[in-house]
Amino acid sequence: MDGDALVTIDWGTTNRRIFLLDADGRVTHREADALGVTAVPPGGFPDEMRRLRERFGDRLFLLAGMIGSNRGWAEAAYVPVPVGVPQLADRLLWVEPGRTAIVPGACTVQAEQADVMRGEEVQLLGAVAAGLIGPDSALCLPGTHAKWARLQAGMLTAFRTVMTGELFALLRGHSILSAQMIAASVDGPAFREGVRRSLDHRGSLPADLFGTRARILLGKLEPQDSASYVSGLLIGADVAIGAELAPTGPVGLIGDPALTRLYAAALDEAGRSYQEIDGEQAFLAGIKAIAERLP
Amino acid sequence: MDGDALVTIDWGTTNRRIFLLDADGRVTHREADALGVTAVPPGGFPDEMRRLRERFGDRLFLLAGMIGSNRGWAEAAYVPVPVGVPQLADRLLWVEPGRTAIVPGACTVQAEQADVMRGEEVQLLGAVAAGLIGPDSALCLPGTHAKWARLQAGMLTAFRTVMTGELFALLRGHSILSAQMIAASVDGPAFREGVRRSLDHRGSLPADLFGTRARILLGKLEPQDSASYVSGLLIGADVAIGAELAPTGPVGLIGDPALTRLYAAALDEAGRSYQEIDGEQAFLAGIKAIAERLP
Repeated sequence: MDGDALVTIDWGTTNRRIFLLDADGRVTHREADALGVTAVPPGGFPDEMRRLRERFGDRLFLLAGMIGSNRGWAEAAYVPVPVGVPQLADRLLWVEPGRTAIVPGACTVQAEQADVMRGEEVQLLGAVAAGLIGPDSALCLPGTHAKWARLQAGMLTAFRTVMTGELFALLRGHSILSAQMIAASVDGPAFREGVRRSLDHRGSLPADLFGTRARILLGKLEPQDSASYVSGLLIGADVAIGAELAPTGPVGLIGDPALTRLYAAALDEAGRSYQEIDGEQAFLAGIKAIAERLP
Repeated sequence: MDGDALVTIDWGTTNRRIFLLDADGRVTHREADALGVTAVPPGGFPDEMRRLRERFGDRLFLLAGMIGSNRGWAEAAYVPVPVGVPQLADRLLWVEPGRTAIVPGACTVQAEQADVMRGEEVQLLGAVAAGLIGPDSALCLPGTHAKWARLQAGMLTAFRTVMTGELFALLRGHSILSAQMIAASVDGPAFREGVRRSLDHRGSLPADLFGTRARILLGKLEPQDSASYVSGLLIGADVAIGAELAPTGPVGLIGDPALTRLYAAALDEAGRSYQEIDGEQAFLAGIKAIAERLP
């Protein structure tokens, strides 16, 4: 832990990941815990920061993610697209001057379409900075709120958030389909059929979801395949939205392998190529690119 | 209560409505209670029927709705479209021979698209039988699972169920949008904006739902308008699905006026005309048309 090291925290709603980097940008320590922003009491962030400095030393801390939201330490205003590393570095919110900064999120407003992100912007720009994907590319980060992003000349120029994971959880937990959605979602014939249905019939999702039940009642779908079929419908609709944002070229996939595998299968059905990108490596590259621009 | 009278029950999952008709088809008594099929214990329907006969006499009983589902008294197999009154009358399930029959539901299977209904088929065919709408028409029954139906030459030829009401309830009750979705959904600028968004951007719904939150965070939507905006997005997507099924002509709307009013506003945005149809009148006309075909 030399004097030039920095600490960065990917600080989400329910979890955080802490990385200590040496002067050469190598990770010398990493840990994760459940102290997401909602686990810290209101006004408790300066105290929490003191505890972190006691453990990791009085270094530069760069924080990203929901820590910069209205539920976090302080609200870091969204930077409108196009956003590159310089824009993020210029708009850091210094919660402890010269010592601790929060990376702002990104936003887009075009006609009646509005969207926001916090944390993913670091990964997206970091993926390019690390050379993991080209400066003109499409990226997808599956999850509760899946993100699709378009990068042009290394800048984030457009993005969309799709409520895929959350809709799946709502349907599995509280809907007329819940009783059947027991098994895990896996790639297979039922999943692929759901994907194709959504790719071929854009806009039919709210009907096709009920169709899941009808298919079971009419003997067209085995009840144990319903979670995979619903997952296919939702991810197919998601991939169609992503294809609208970034119609050509390979898609970089960042996320939990269990989930990116399903997106890879859906992209395959849509005739799109893809490449897996390591999210941690992309995040750290993004943070290092920001840190390099600091005085 | 003369000897020719019949009793009909629109027997749903959580409620039932009972009508006593005289020999001329006039309603001589009506009542409703919460004894839906799930409130009757397994195997309890013959006993429940004895109680009904003690009250209403030993008459012909025609039962419709979820009473014919796998959660009801006995499963009445779905009749595939095209379905008219004669098909329903021929396929009655006589749970008590000559005395008590269950009207079957309807189903459609075309390519990978499957759908089912129970109870609405009586209203749809009854609306035509009563002359409330022409024999070639489109009908919409808003609700938890909204139904769109196409009638041709007085037969039900195609239909789709859209999970509109259920998705709204899931989002209001359990989602990231719940905290803001407090106020009632009303027709107004926010509702109309949601409708137009869905009509103009078919297939974007899972992204536009998250966009509701983004619009609030970016000051483009007042939090108290979010329920109306989400309702507009969902009903707009629903109307677009209905327009695919029945692209031209006026739409007959059957249902709770608070809800049909929102659908009327959405149809208005879509440039479609509509007419309100009394659901009870349509149901009773359908039952009478079936009864007239019995020996």
